[in-house]
Amino acid sequence: MSGETPSLDEGIDKSAAIYQAAARIFHEKGYHATSINEIADAVQLTKAGLYYYIRGKQELLFGIMSYAMDQLEMHVLERARGEQDPETRLRTLITAHGRLITADSSALTILVNELEGLTHEQRREIVGRQRAYMDFIRSTLEALRAEGRLRDIDSTVGAFSILGMVLWTSRWYRPDGRLSRDQVIDEIANIALGAVVAERGSQRAGTGFVETLHKELP
Amino acid sequence: MSGETPSLDEGIDKSAAIYQAAARIFHEKGYHATSINEIADAVQLTKAGLYYYIRGKQELLFGIMSYAMDQLEMHVLERARGEQDPETRLRTLITAHGRLITADSSALTILVNELEGLTHEQRREIVGRQRAYMDFIRSTLEALRAEGRLRDIDSTVGAFSILGMVLWTSRWYRPDGRLSRDQVIDEIANIALGAVVAERGSQRAGTGFVETLHKELP
Repeated sequence: MSGETPSLDEGIDKSAAIYQAAARIFHEKGYHATSINEIADAVQLTKAGLYYYIRGKQELLFGIMSYAMDQLEMHVLERARGEQDPETRLRTLITAHGRLITADSSALTILVNELEGLTHEQRREIVGRQRAYMDFIRSTLEALRAEGRLRDIDSTVGAFSILGMVLWTSRWYRPDGRLSRDQVIDEIANIALGAVVAERGSQRAGTGFVETLHKELP
Repeated sequence: MSGETPSLDEGIDKSAAIYQAAARIFHEKGYHATSINEIADAVQLTKAGLYYYIRGKQELLFGIMSYAMDQLEMHVLERARGEQDPETRLRTLITAHGRLITADSSALTILVNELEGLTHEQRREIVGRQRAYMDFIRSTLEALRAEGRLRDIDSTVGAFSILGMVLWTSRWYRPDGRLSRDQVIDEIANIALGAVVAERGSQRAGTGFVETLHKELP
């Protein structure tokens, strides 16, 4: 028996390979359309062999989503939190999220598209973490507003719009495209910041200023 | 036999009901996970009865995507094409697309997510129409550039970013939310235009102008 049981290192390697294969196949075909046999085939295990490592398809889905949230929190949120200036914080967040998405979007795409495959409890956990991510973007926009550096926009719609721009990248970005990966990410950061950050000086000139002045005068 | 055959009007009504039911179920479960039996059940037909109206699941998918492209072309492209000023054209496009998406996003979402379910020929047709839509947005951005009214951005990334913002709305917009539908659409149009349109006067003042001047000087 013990000869058939993988060592700890082998077990970890095999588990990682299973999660990677499952993420790729879920991404290509969708969670519902993927059978556990296809995942077993992809990692050269029998179905019974696969169940040595995992409890089932739903556990794999939850594991992949948790991994994607770990990545977002570790590589994006953590890094952005270190920035004091709200504009720099937002640029850091967009750039880091863009880097993750253009590196390998399968887990991040599953995170967004397959929520209804989870149990009630699992979904509550993942949605809670997603909400915290959204709240961080929105609070960064409100920090800009507090400094008079936000356009006259709703911060919730602003946060969703930034997220939409960044997430959509996974659908059109091609590594062999006309622009390099860094160029694409820079462009997106510039476009997203342009969408929400007030132009320097624009608040002190033009119609806006005159209107404000009229309101402030007795 | 003739007594069992629906009249032309009945046939058209039933076909419409089948496409609507299929769009809803594909949207909820994904194309691959939906069986032809579920669609038949939803419109109270037997599987054989359903095949009186349609040739199969793939034809339904192609029909739904073609319908969604018809909607985009008729209600968004046509309307935007009527606008001479590129900024007004872009605002018209975003607003009209936003209205379609917040009315009923199922066909539009399927259009974006289920391309790989089509045959090669069908996919080529749909992708060609999607590309024409993208080209229209990009050419509108280039028209803004020609008038010196585009920010210093890549028009392809700009067009994809606008599309991402608008499409993402279908994932977060709730009819019973804090903002009305019109408010949400207005906010998105403002944010998207802010992302790409250069502020009036900003090109003639500030660092940008000085830098340009330095580059142009010998």
